[in-house]
Formats: sequence, C-alpha cells, structure tokens
Amino acid sequence: MTFIHIQEVIARDGFQIEKHFVPTNEKVNLINELSTCGYSKIEVTSFVSPKAVPNLSDAKEVATSIKRQPDVTYVALVPNLRGAQDAIAANIDEINLVMSASETHNTKNVRQTKTESLQQFEQIIHETKGTDMLVNGSIATSFGCPFEGSISENEILSIIDSYVTMGMDSITLADTTGMANPKQVEKLVSKVCKLFVDLPLTLHFHNTRGMGLANVVAAINGGANRFDSSLGGIGGCPFAPGATGNICTEDTVHMLTEMGLQTNIDLDKVIALSKKLPALLQRADIPGQIVKAGKVSDLHQP
Amino acid sequence: MTFIHIQEVIARDGFQIEKHFVPTNEKVNLINELSTCGYSKIEVTSFVSPKAVPNLSDAKEVATSIKRQPDVTYVALVPNLRGAQDAIAANIDEINLVMSASETHNTKNVRQTKTESLQQFEQIIHETKGTDMLVNGSIATSFGCPFEGSISENEILSIIDSYVTMGMDSITLADTTGMANPKQVEKLVSKVCKLFVDLPLTLHFHNTRGMGLANVVAAINGGANRFDSSLGGIGGCPFAPGATGNICTEDTVHMLTEMGLQTNIDLDKVIALSKKLPALLQRADIPGQIVKAGKVSDLHQP
Repeated sequence: MTFIHIQEVIARDGFQIEKHFVPTNEKVNLINELSTCGYSKIEVTSFVSPKAVPNLSDAKEVATSIKRQPDVTYVALVPNLRGAQDAIAANIDEINLVMSASETHNTKNVRQTKTESLQQFEQIIHETKGTDMLVNGSIATSFGCPFEGSISENEILSIIDSYVTMGMDSITLADTTGMANPKQVEKLVSKVCKLFVDLPLTLHFHNTRGMGLANVVAAINGGANRFDSSLGGIGGCPFAPGATGNICTEDTVHMLTEMGLQTNIDLDKVIALSKKLPALLQRADIPGQIVKAGKVSDLHQP
Repeated sequence: MTFIHIQEVIARDGFQIEKHFVPTNEKVNLINELSTCGYSKIEVTSFVSPKAVPNLSDAKEVATSIKRQPDVTYVALVPNLRGAQDAIAANIDEINLVMSASETHNTKNVRQTKTESLQQFEQIIHETKGTDMLVNGSIATSFGCPFEGSISENEILSIIDSYVTMGMDSITLADTTGMANPKQVEKLVSKVCKLFVDLPLTLHFHNTRGMGLANVVAAINGGANRFDSSLGGIGGCPFAPGATGNICTEDTVHMLTEMGLQTNIDLDKVIALSKKLPALLQRADIPGQIVKAGKVSDLHQP
C-alpha cells in the first residue's frame, strides 16, 4: 500500500492570518494533541518579527513548551538569519526557508530579490553546520504568481538545483495562492521526481479555487508522497478574501483513505480536533467538508 | 483539444432543496441567460408532485416559457408516467429517469423497489415512442449509498445493461451524496467506457466531501467527457446539512480551462450569473470558490 506523509501546518500557515490571537497555551495544547495523530511533520510556528506577524509573536514559547514525540519532525519557518538562530536555540528539528519563484512576489513577501534570498539561505545553512537541524527549502508561487502569472518549469527546476547545491535536505513546491491545476501539477511533479530521485518533495496546496484535492491526486499520479495540509482548511491568501485556505487535513486524509492509500493519520481524532476550531478561532466558517458531511463510512440507518 | 460537455442542473437539482421559492419568472430569466452560455444540456425542472417538491411546482410554466436555443438540449426529470406525459406535453427535448443502485435508497427516494422502477421506465419509454424525445437513465448512489454503503461495480454495469436494453439513449452515473473517490471513479468509468463504447455517459458529482473536482479529473482520465454541474455549487444532500452541493459550474469550467480542455462555456458570463445567486436565493453562503477568489488569469497589479 502506498504511504503518504501528511504534514500539519495549521499552527503556522493557518494561525498567521487569523484575526483572533490564539493564546499560547491553546497553541501548545493543540500541537500536543496533533503530535499523537500520526503526522510525519508539524510546522509549529515561524520565527518572524512580532510586528510582521503578531499572531506568531510567541514562537519561542510555543517551540519550547510543546511536548515532542520522537516520530514527528517539528518544523519552524524562518525568514532570516536571526530567525534561524532563534530556531537553533529552541532546538527545532527542521527549519523551513521560503523564496518565491516570482521576483515580484518575493520582493513583496520578504522584501528581498531572489538573489538576496539565496545568499541569505547560504548563510543560514552555514549557521546550522554542526547541529542536527534539517533544512527544507520552499518555493512559493511554484505554480503561478498573482502578480506575474505563469512560472516556467525551468525556473522551478533551476531553483531546486540551487537549493540542493547549497545543501538543503528537502524541498517544498508551494501553490501559495491556489493557482495550480491538476494537469500542470502532474507534469511538474513527474519532472522533479525524475530529475531529483532521492530528494524528499512536499507539495503545499491551497484550495483557493477549489482544485486542492484534485491537485493532491495529480501530484500522487506524478510520484509525490508528501503533503502539507491544515486542520479544518484554515489558512489562506490575503489576495482572495472569503476564499478557502490550505487544503484541509481531514478532507485530504479522508480522500486518501477512501482511495486505499495509507497515511498513518488517526482520522477520527483529527476530525474531533477540527470540531474545536470554531471555538478556538472564534469564527464559524471553517472550510473543511468532512466535519460537516461526515466520513463516507459513517452510514445512516436505513 | 479534448471537448468536455457541461450540463447545468441548478434549475432542478439546485432549486429543489432551496428554502426560498424562486419565482417562476426569475427561473425563466436565469435559464434564458444560461441558454446563451454554451451548455450542451440544461436540466430545467422536474415534473414531480408539487406536494413532494413545492419549489418545482411551476414545472409546466417554466418548461413552456423558456426561450430555447437550438444547440441546447433541454431536460426535465420525471419520476413517473404522468410526469413523462407532462414532459411530452411541454415538448421537452429529453427526460431524465432516476433509479438508485441501492434498493434502500430507491425505496426511500421514490417509494418503489428497483424492479418496480425498471418496469415503470419501460412504460415511460413506450409512452415516448413516436416522439422525438430522448431518454436519459440516471443511476443514483452509483458510487455508494448513505444507508447500504458500497455498491458493487457489477450492480452498476447490470443496471446500465438494463437501461440500454430497454432503449435509453444515454446514462448518468450519479454520486448522489458525495461518496465517490477519484480511484473508484476512474476504475468504474474506464470499465463503462470500454463496455458501452457508443453510449453517451454523464458523471453527476456532488462536492459533499470536497472530492468533486478530483472526481471530475479522475473521470476524464477514465474516458468521460460529460458532466452535470450547478451554478454556484447550489444543490446538495439532505443527509449532510451545511455540506456543499453539486459540483460548481464555474469552478469546474475554470479548472478544465486551466487544464487546456475545451468546454464551449462562456466562463465570465457564468461567473456573472453566479454572482446574482445570493440575491436570487436569499442566502449568502454560495459554495463556489471562483466567485470569491477570481480566475487564475485575473492577475493583480504588482
């Protein structure tokens, strides 16, 4: 049976754009619960400026307060050298470095050119030498940029090559604003899997335009076996108000399970945790569908 | 370029479960607008008991008031011989007959055994002899029943065989409560396309559990090229309150277009019509995503 790794991102990609600040102890409690659900990785926070992302201003506290499980890789996003140093001090397992494939998006997102981002990544990787820290390189807007439009496959392959050359352990292709379509995904993923055979590859999809789960299936058809997802489908794109966010963990796992694929995720526990989100986030409109509709296996009485 | 037929069902599958009665002239106006959008078929109403489905009590008026376009096939669902006679009187192009693959679901849905449904279909087909009326046979719960669970492929193939033998012109496999998964869809559709080569096959998906568009791609991979969809994603399943309904026309067409497939649908016009639904239905929560997020090709200014 094909095994698919599920990587939870609600505590970073989900919480960062929520209006309501999730109290630190609630973040820690949720991550501790998620830690026993069978995820391969959990992205717990971002060591970013508290001014830039107030919702994650408690990064250090969260990272050092959670109860870690030995079979889970705990990840933090870091935007710069100082963030990397904070992550090392907090003994995070893996740091996630993000550059956009689109020059315009990178400039708007991190106020650096792509060349500057790559130079900074080299410094950060140098900083991690002598530690056990893993480094994942994410490529934002891999499937399209809301400012520049389509991104060439060659540009993505070239960035992956730069990432691998500078010593990154794994990479993520991120569909930051939900522009990917299944045909494009299968084509690019197939190429990456053929060219970079032993490189762990994560697909990070948003469901902004309803194509999230179709893209998951397309990526699996192309050879991928690792996906970021967010409990309840929380997260999203500031350019599409009202649109749904990251692909929803429980909807994704439910589909993969129905397809006969193995994920190791305790789906019932994840669904139970998702049901607590409206109270935790003080919002009623959680995008996930399985919480509303139930699993296919939940039969009604005739 | 592969051509995919899109068949609009909002006026039947969508409106039938809405709380608010859509006034007859508004139904007619909407269908007239939809008629110029490039659909292959439009299901305009159901000749059903006004007591059973009050929202479609104006079936005759709708069917006889709409302005028909020559390149569109206008369809009405009919539940019995009397409905078929009404449809013939209204000069509908095609009637849609529905039986569930699940005995339990059929009993609950139409208060008949499957044997009784098939006998009735033969009477109805006899009634249409000598007219130009086309007959489509739908198989509800083709991919799973909320009461009985999984449905065997052999049962579906056997029903298709019965439908074809009695003279139906085309068939629809309906995922009535959103239980289908992409692997199952590709497998069943491939089989049907191989066994019934010249039989027009429609897939009718609901997005109840978020798998709707993934199932569309899977069905195309299996050889299908006809899909029912509902403007705005209106419609749904009474067993899953709060869950989304039929797959959304504009989200489906947007995805197919991005994949380089041809649909003949005027996507911008469909999106404009979908934006009128909150006022028409007196509800704010329209499931479609493209209306909220915009098309992938709608770039922002850098």
